[in-house]
Amino acid sequence: MSKKYRVGVVGATGVVGQEIIKILEARKFPVQLLRCFASERSLGQTVEFNGQRIDVEVLSQETLTDLDFALFSAGSSISKEYCPIAAERGIVCIDNTSHFRMEEGIPLVVPEVNKDALKNHNNIIANPNCSTAQMMVVLKPILDAVGIKRVVVSTYQSVSGAGSSAIKELEDQSRANLSGQELAPKAFSAPIAFNVIPQIDVFLDNGYTKEEIKMINETKKILGSDDIKVTATTVRVPVFVSHSEAINIETQQYLSADDARKLLANTPGVKVVDDPEKLKYPTPRDAAGKDDVLVGRIRQDVSIDNGIELWCVGDNLRKGAALNAVQIAEALIA
Amino acid sequence: MSKKYRVGVVGATGVVGQEIIKILEARKFPVQLLRCFASERSLGQTVEFNGQRIDVEVLSQETLTDLDFALFSAGSSISKEYCPIAAERGIVCIDNTSHFRMEEGIPLVVPEVNKDALKNHNNIIANPNCSTAQMMVVLKPILDAVGIKRVVVSTYQSVSGAGSSAIKELEDQSRANLSGQELAPKAFSAPIAFNVIPQIDVFLDNGYTKEEIKMINETKKILGSDDIKVTATTVRVPVFVSHSEAINIETQQYLSADDARKLLANTPGVKVVDDPEKLKYPTPRDAAGKDDVLVGRIRQDVSIDNGIELWCVGDNLRKGAALNAVQIAEALIA
Repeated sequence: MSKKYRVGVVGATGVVGQEIIKILEARKFPVQLLRCFASERSLGQTVEFNGQRIDVEVLSQETLTDLDFALFSAGSSISKEYCPIAAERGIVCIDNTSHFRMEEGIPLVVPEVNKDALKNHNNIIANPNCSTAQMMVVLKPILDAVGIKRVVVSTYQSVSGAGSSAIKELEDQSRANLSGQELAPKAFSAPIAFNVIPQIDVFLDNGYTKEEIKMINETKKILGSDDIKVTATTVRVPVFVSHSEAINIETQQYLSADDARKLLANTPGVKVVDDPEKLKYPTPRDAAGKDDVLVGRIRQDVSIDNGIELWCVGDNLRKGAALNAVQIAEALIA
Repeated sequence: MSKKYRVGVVGATGVVGQEIIKILEARKFPVQLLRCFASERSLGQTVEFNGQRIDVEVLSQETLTDLDFALFSAGSSISKEYCPIAAERGIVCIDNTSHFRMEEGIPLVVPEVNKDALKNHNNIIANPNCSTAQMMVVLKPILDAVGIKRVVVSTYQSVSGAGSSAIKELEDQSRANLSGQELAPKAFSAPIAFNVIPQIDVFLDNGYTKEEIKMINETKKILGSDDIKVTATTVRVPVFVSHSEAINIETQQYLSADDARKLLANTPGVKVVDDPEKLKYPTPRDAAGKDDVLVGRIRQDVSIDNGIELWCVGDNLRKGAALNAVQIAEALIA
């Protein structure tokens, strides 16, 4: 009989936590015992897993024990406090928050891209930002084939990346607007219904947002190269699930659009949806609920000699968060 | 008494035509007589102008006479057929469609940017594509100050750019979705409610869409330079009015973000809305109904030595179409 593991999900009642539990079940991760942690607010709730109802436990130093894995997605402050405690107890922590991502010695991993980084961990492994993760599986084969000089990315990110209150805000505000009413924003700093907001996460001194700098720094760490230049504009759009990205890639050597298409078609975790004649290209709705990152609109950049333009769409709750976290756990036990 | 003009609006019942009539009135264009042309479908409709009800006339060779100006926004095939006839009759045609834009000898004009091009016209003047027009007022001062090498732009375009059926589709589809229903797309080739569509206009052989190539070619013509390299990804978003653009500008010489901000603050037709500390940046809702193109998120590109990232938002029915057309007429009579 193959080994089974005791898995804890921290933030089990949140949007990503719920997705982690679904994915553990769907991918038949060898779970001996699943424990679901949340804050006191969620006490009394239950979570369904493999047909069983599991009581939510309140996260504390006392409860966070007797686990092989803990998958964290309850916010940076929770990870900051509890990952080191769990790691000390021999629990392998896979952290969805940004807290440890750029820390030296902490692997930041997209398994299809840099699984090797898992070799050296001290029980804490960071899961990349949602918008970074989906870009990595697309950039990696191009980097390996022809090298990458510079990336200019603009994102179209769904509200589910901001949690369940943001999902509700888009729904309620849209409904209000369609009845001629306004509903003041709470989850966002501007209305999101029938609008777009060029801000995700807080602003930094250089005028970029933290989300943009995450994409820039995490890309370099995951691809293992400080030479790749990256700039990003991250934008929230009124979409429920899936992030889209217009990615402009200046390559070191020439790569034709056809070759880029072939390269990506042979990349695990990527599905090419690119047939302009039949008006086939990926949209957020197409990617929602899917594991693969969808790529289309692949074309040679007319503004430079060596450049590729493309459009990639991924389910931000899956590849951008829960799926990638579970894939990290899978890679560790493989 | 100053001169007054006989003005015809072709496509007077459409989204842009209606906006032209509102703007002629609001800006007190010296109209002696306004005539409203449309197809037979609109016969019997009336249009309000300066408190008067004006009957819609059916456009034909017989009716399109006795005018000083004709402002066309009834589709390329109508402009192709009727602009030359009107021009031959001495009527100055300002055409909102793409038909004549790239034709040699036809001025393509954004008055704040290249008013001089109006000096040589043969009674046909082209109005740029909506997404191009708003980008021009932003690029021009930067071009003049430090030169521009390359522009990478990603757009977030509202449905009103696709006409009134598209506006209705977003509304109806959103309403359906919020009640758990689906409504098949007609105006677009994919659902637009709670989705984004990386296609505007038809696909060309090189994988770009016609909208993207319009932005590329029109930019060079308006700015009067083939040396400026441009690439674009144009995307439809579920917003009713105003197009947004994430513009990455590689400049010839260094320009600080502060200097870019000052430069743009002194540019006619531009309003800088850029105070990250107070979470101030432009969104489509802020620009709707306004004449100015709003610019924010101005920052130095961290990926190159000489680069500026910014975010610009304009009312696509105004600066992107109707307002610019009326401004061309104003420049001609000045």
